[in-house]
Amino acid sequence: MKSWAMRRPTANLTIDDFMLRDMPPPEAGDGEILVETHYISLDPYLSRAMKSWKGEHPGWADGTIHGRIVGAVIESRFPGLSVGDRVIGIGRWQPVNAMPGQAVQLIAPDIDPPSLVLGALGRSGITAWVGLHLSGLKAGETILISAATGPVGSVAAQLAKARGCHVIGTAGGEAKCRHATDLLGYDACIDHGAADLEDRLKAAAGEGVDVLFENVGASSLDAALPLMRPRGRIMLCGLAQHYLTEDPMLLRNFKYLLYSELSLRAFITANYPDLFAPALEELRDGILSGRLLFEETIIDGLDNAADTFLAMLGGEGIGKRLIRL
Amino acid sequence: MKSWAMRRPTANLTIDDFMLRDMPPPEAGDGEILVETHYISLDPYLSRAMKSWKGEHPGWADGTIHGRIVGAVIESRFPGLSVGDRVIGIGRWQPVNAMPGQAVQLIAPDIDPPSLVLGALGRSGITAWVGLHLSGLKAGETILISAATGPVGSVAAQLAKARGCHVIGTAGGEAKCRHATDLLGYDACIDHGAADLEDRLKAAAGEGVDVLFENVGASSLDAALPLMRPRGRIMLCGLAQHYLTEDPMLLRNFKYLLYSELSLRAFITANYPDLFAPALEELRDGILSGRLLFEETIIDGLDNAADTFLAMLGGEGIGKRLIRL
Repeated sequence: MKSWAMRRPTANLTIDDFMLRDMPPPEAGDGEILVETHYISLDPYLSRAMKSWKGEHPGWADGTIHGRIVGAVIESRFPGLSVGDRVIGIGRWQPVNAMPGQAVQLIAPDIDPPSLVLGALGRSGITAWVGLHLSGLKAGETILISAATGPVGSVAAQLAKARGCHVIGTAGGEAKCRHATDLLGYDACIDHGAADLEDRLKAAAGEGVDVLFENVGASSLDAALPLMRPRGRIMLCGLAQHYLTEDPMLLRNFKYLLYSELSLRAFITANYPDLFAPALEELRDGILSGRLLFEETIIDGLDNAADTFLAMLGGEGIGKRLIRL
Repeated sequence: MKSWAMRRPTANLTIDDFMLRDMPPPEAGDGEILVETHYISLDPYLSRAMKSWKGEHPGWADGTIHGRIVGAVIESRFPGLSVGDRVIGIGRWQPVNAMPGQAVQLIAPDIDPPSLVLGALGRSGITAWVGLHLSGLKAGETILISAATGPVGSVAAQLAKARGCHVIGTAGGEAKCRHATDLLGYDACIDHGAADLEDRLKAAAGEGVDVLFENVGASSLDAALPLMRPRGRIMLCGLAQHYLTEDPMLLRNFKYLLYSELSLRAFITANYPDLFAPALEELRDGILSGRLLFEETIIDGLDNAADTFLAMLGGEGIGKRLIRL
């Protein structure tokens, strides 16, 4: 059975660092289930594990890639789960995984498609909710979201709009930006590669930015800092631009942090478990009622996982990026 | 009468940007006082006004340097002040200033030397107090202070020690570091130029740093970031390393902000007037009782003001840097 792994720990991830090796099919031990993979979640944070061979799952130690998987139970040696149940768990990037029954979560029958629990109804959506919550965003405020059409940004924008905010974003390319304003409710979205980025951002920001929801890194932060209002808040959610490199970050406008008395707060969603329930309640209501648009870019075929992962880190795709088997 | 001014707004301040020009002696208008200058406060933040020709005082518009002055009233056309009163106010860097009586503050008779109101009992001391207060520093925590022997750092360290904290610092040179540990209560102080800075800082930090009190800039922040404990707090008080340059800040360890879920909060003391009274109460008690050591580096002579100011920005001197006339 094919299974993705890393050749070596590496600072600058390329396709050559990945290998698709042949592994014996897994068997379900006592208390375990066999899960047939339907969706593999491609998450930027995995690149950190790829560089260090340390991830949420101890199996990383030999370079075997582990990530979030949605699939169906095809054999159960765990009393709480039956064949046919749809579950989410941590597994290898391979067609079938053995997982401890205790370690997976059942996906409710009304969740359709089940891949939602990897995106808008999973970590990405919860991250958007938690970031807005921790920022103290209030109606009437202006929020700037980088990676505007990403899995987190696309949800954060819709939630912020529902809270009565002026919502602006930056994204890679005019096509993504049109998508952002046409479908996701952004009041404005600027191509982060535009030559006149600063002028256009300034025009879009009006009286200035109250909250920056930062998913990208130095270039995005640097463009935003001069636009922040006094005592503006920066939520540091991700640094996608920097996961693949050890190059230092270069910030021309760092001084604005001081001059504008800004605050910056980094957060890792996994460390806010108390917020998952209220986050999921709002997200679920929004999605089931159709008010909250969820975005997925789905690529078929296990063989495409590494390429698609690297393309995502390079900015390709909209919303949640998934491999479907 | 000699008076210091700037030749032009400039990004990279050198001695050639200063000029000592001859001005007519000031006269006290109605409601004004004439103040004979005893001390001129040298404050890093002035370099920003020097670059932009915009400062707290509108007089900056023509390049005339204005800063905090302590002196004695030698003529009064303001009912509330008499000849001989000691006051602090904003004035030109010159031997005598006309100041509106409303705009100065009387120095209490028990304050000795009166220069204290420019340092430990003035903006510098209050800044130390406010920074610790906003950081939520608690007994038993570890605090790292950059510019350890500066006017703010030297007070912050003693206040933190009094709160039962483990206090470590960085400073320029072994001599300053010895001063820090011998006199200011630092548990450890590392020369920021030491080749083994990171190792020594790590050893001094023990279980990690809870609060970073940042006065310097990129190099100092970069050395501290990997040592911060999860959810550590960074108080951004000053960026002395960067006031003279427009070069971008280069941060190798910025990612630790995210990985360790750090928060960074910038503060400008002037914007926390409600905290001045409690700050001054503790500072005054400490100084009058002799528990709080105040540090001054005093240079005599108006002619030396610009040179001394630039030397201070380059790291020379300990504690509050003052020109005495």
